[in-house]
Amino acid sequence: MVELNPSASFSLKIELEIPNRPGALASIMSTVASVGGSLGDIVLLQRNLKYTHRELTIDASSTEQGDKIIAAIKSLPKVKVISYNDRTFAIHRGGKISVESKLPLNSQSDLAMAYTPGVGRICRAIAENPEEVYNLTIKSNTVAVVTDGSAVLGLGNLGPEASLPVMEGKALLFKEFAGIDAFPIALDTQDTEEIIKAVKQIAPVFGGVNLEDITAPRCFEIEHRLRQELDIPVFHDDQHGTAIVVLAALYNALKLIGKEINEIKIVINGAGAAGIAIALLLKKAGASNITICDSKGIISTQRDDLNSNKQEFAVKQQGTLADAMKDADVFLGVSAPGVVTPEMVYTMADQGIVFAMANPIPEIQPELIYDYVAVMATGRSDYPNQINNVLAFPGVFRGALDCRATAITTNMYLEAAKAIALLVNDDDLDREHIIPSVFDKRVATTVAQAVCLAAQRDNIAQKPITNK
Amino acid sequence: MVELNPSASFSLKIELEIPNRPGALASIMSTVASVGGSLGDIVLLQRNLKYTHRELTIDASSTEQGDKIIAAIKSLPKVKVISYNDRTFAIHRGGKISVESKLPLNSQSDLAMAYTPGVGRICRAIAENPEEVYNLTIKSNTVAVVTDGSAVLGLGNLGPEASLPVMEGKALLFKEFAGIDAFPIALDTQDTEEIIKAVKQIAPVFGGVNLEDITAPRCFEIEHRLRQELDIPVFHDDQHGTAIVVLAALYNALKLIGKEINEIKIVINGAGAAGIAIALLLKKAGASNITICDSKGIISTQRDDLNSNKQEFAVKQQGTLADAMKDADVFLGVSAPGVVTPEMVYTMADQGIVFAMANPIPEIQPELIYDYVAVMATGRSDYPNQINNVLAFPGVFRGALDCRATAITTNMYLEAAKAIALLVNDDDLDREHIIPSVFDKRVATTVAQAVCLAAQRDNIAQKPITNK
Repeated sequence: MVELNPSASFSLKIELEIPNRPGALASIMSTVASVGGSLGDIVLLQRNLKYTHRELTIDASSTEQGDKIIAAIKSLPKVKVISYNDRTFAIHRGGKISVESKLPLNSQSDLAMAYTPGVGRICRAIAENPEEVYNLTIKSNTVAVVTDGSAVLGLGNLGPEASLPVMEGKALLFKEFAGIDAFPIALDTQDTEEIIKAVKQIAPVFGGVNLEDITAPRCFEIEHRLRQELDIPVFHDDQHGTAIVVLAALYNALKLIGKEINEIKIVINGAGAAGIAIALLLKKAGASNITICDSKGIISTQRDDLNSNKQEFAVKQQGTLADAMKDADVFLGVSAPGVVTPEMVYTMADQGIVFAMANPIPEIQPELIYDYVAVMATGRSDYPNQINNVLAFPGVFRGALDCRATAITTNMYLEAAKAIALLVNDDDLDREHIIPSVFDKRVATTVAQAVCLAAQRDNIAQKPITNK
Repeated sequence: MVELNPSASFSLKIELEIPNRPGALASIMSTVASVGGSLGDIVLLQRNLKYTHRELTIDASSTEQGDKIIAAIKSLPKVKVISYNDRTFAIHRGGKISVESKLPLNSQSDLAMAYTPGVGRICRAIAENPEEVYNLTIKSNTVAVVTDGSAVLGLGNLGPEASLPVMEGKALLFKEFAGIDAFPIALDTQDTEEIIKAVKQIAPVFGGVNLEDITAPRCFEIEHRLRQELDIPVFHDDQHGTAIVVLAALYNALKLIGKEINEIKIVINGAGAAGIAIALLLKKAGASNITICDSKGIISTQRDDLNSNKQEFAVKQQGTLADAMKDADVFLGVSAPGVVTPEMVYTMADQGIVFAMANPIPEIQPELIYDYVAVMATGRSDYPNQINNVLAFPGVFRGALDCRATAITTNMYLEAAKAIALLVNDDDLDREHIIPSVFDKRVATTVAQAVCLAAQRDNIAQKPITNK
């Protein structure tokens, strides 16, 4: 079993009453450390002659360990636990987003303009000139985050309600990183045709559709059909967001070791939405030697259990993931925890590149192979080189909305990937810095510009780009 | 043709450069008045020895009159129009609502809690206990404002895109008056079954559904079916919002003149969503003598063109609206501009009550009959006694969400109406004050409390009410 590090996702906030004497706080701190908790902020709430009240933030590595930490503190003599909560649950109470008014509404005049009778003039203006919906409503900056709850994170088919925290989170990221108003739509159907129809029916208010956490291969058909049948951009983030960021990171990793994309052998483990999309985009970027594995091993022409998306990448070779990895220059994991062993990595070509992106536990722990590969990346924020979709989708949609792209094309993905890669300049580029931080403020605007330009070249931008 | 008064819905903002000498501003003001404009704010932007820059807000009565006002100002010697805009259009640019984040997102810890990996714990908690969706997502405070664009205000079938300004306006009102997060869903279908299916499919994120601007009789079937097939409250505002406020106003009007609801003759003109819903609610409130008219006259048992909703109210009498109004105590118009003449009102019983609620132009102008009736109300804000749904729907949903009602029942409508009526105390009650102002801060909370209590009595409240 892989042991996780303490992290904010299992973070506690604990209010304590502590005797006001030297060493009291220190003994709590060593108790927390002794059971593996990681102390964050310590805030002094109040103090008198006898006691201090302090609020401690402590990261744990699991719910169980969080319980142990609280029990350990409670067992300390003279220390009183006033209250505690699980911070992740606390911030989720009541949800993470709200709908807000952009206008004051304090007088009859305000009402008469924003609502009846004035609003009727706006309705008529749109009825007379449908293009005006982009000027006079929220459409031009609003994106639907659509799921059917069939593949919620790595957790499986949890259904629409249980998927909502992820969709709200996505809406949060859209707002924070790109100023986009996104709204979660978790559909109570997992039928491909019904999903397509529902998305088309709710489309009028949206300027774009971000598909999320829908299982393969249904996600391919849903995205394909919606692209054909809607005139607003449709983007399945699990596919293309991942592919863009992987390609960006790969560009820089290859630059670092001096290999060319068209000369390397790439192994992708995982043939779901992300795996197939990565393979497609790498091929567009010039990669010619790609082997994909799924849970049954290499996607081989000898197999008769392949859907059409897998067939496109079937190779002659048969065998296991271990077979595939021999002499590979690059391993890209979008699969499951711990499926790669150090021995498998040792058989890779010199200067190996390993992106172990299974979440939250990678295909192989970085510590195990750090000295044997040239570049190591994961999906985690507590290791260097985090491959995180947040680097792509906010800027991609910002760009698509800004130029009123009717779709999001492969050229837009490619340009987005290049733009992300170029944000790491040569001086900063090293094996622990192949990709910008998600908090790098330049990312979304840079990606948006690249996407706009690509949309113009592809002749799908309906609005001229204005330099802001 | 009925002449409209200048109003904010046709309001202009004009920036002018005016010679800095006594009388210059006065001459502009008289020019504006001479072409019928109504001056609002005048703001001094800057002043030097030669000129002043001022921004004038001017209400017009139509777009054409607005143009005339600007032309008249432009024709003045030495006055320069720097810029002008139509305020109603200006406030609609980019839409009226936004989606905002409730959380900071400044660090990896913030991300790890609000998004992956921490969010996975929340998803799992909901999957294990579906009730948690009400605690851990936006559902408990979020309402869908759903339309198919088939009956946008009084403007007709403008389609989903052109309906959006109304739906956004509604979302604005939900937020401002009841703190509810509402999101506009304008469906690209006008098929009854498709609408029902689409609303059910998008329901997981919503705690309630407000139907809006859907034509009768489809709206009856859609609401009926959704009530049966969803476990969240569904409310068609054009029906029940209107009915609640009409009943509230009628309670007070009758109190004023000393008549009882079960003794009076009521004529309703308009047999669409609002007309039928008003009739149903008045019947529940004790009214026994109701005659409904549609564009073909009295809804009579002799007619063979009636849908089932109309049939329920068919009376023996045949004839025109004028025939129906003879000896009526109450006329309720939810129909079309100018269809009632003073002569028709003269034939009503003594102490007549006329609610002429067609929007924006009433069935009869109040000035024409003000001296001949006991109480006159309209849907307009520029006359006394505005019958405005804003008095009902925010509080109704606030109450339904607060107690987690599974539906909104007729008893909840009745209690809401009583609560609204009681907000006008006996000292304030007179023929020009039968209903509270929409800006009366007590309305939504009072309605919400009444609705919660009624839900409890009807055994459909899933959450105990806490006094706030």
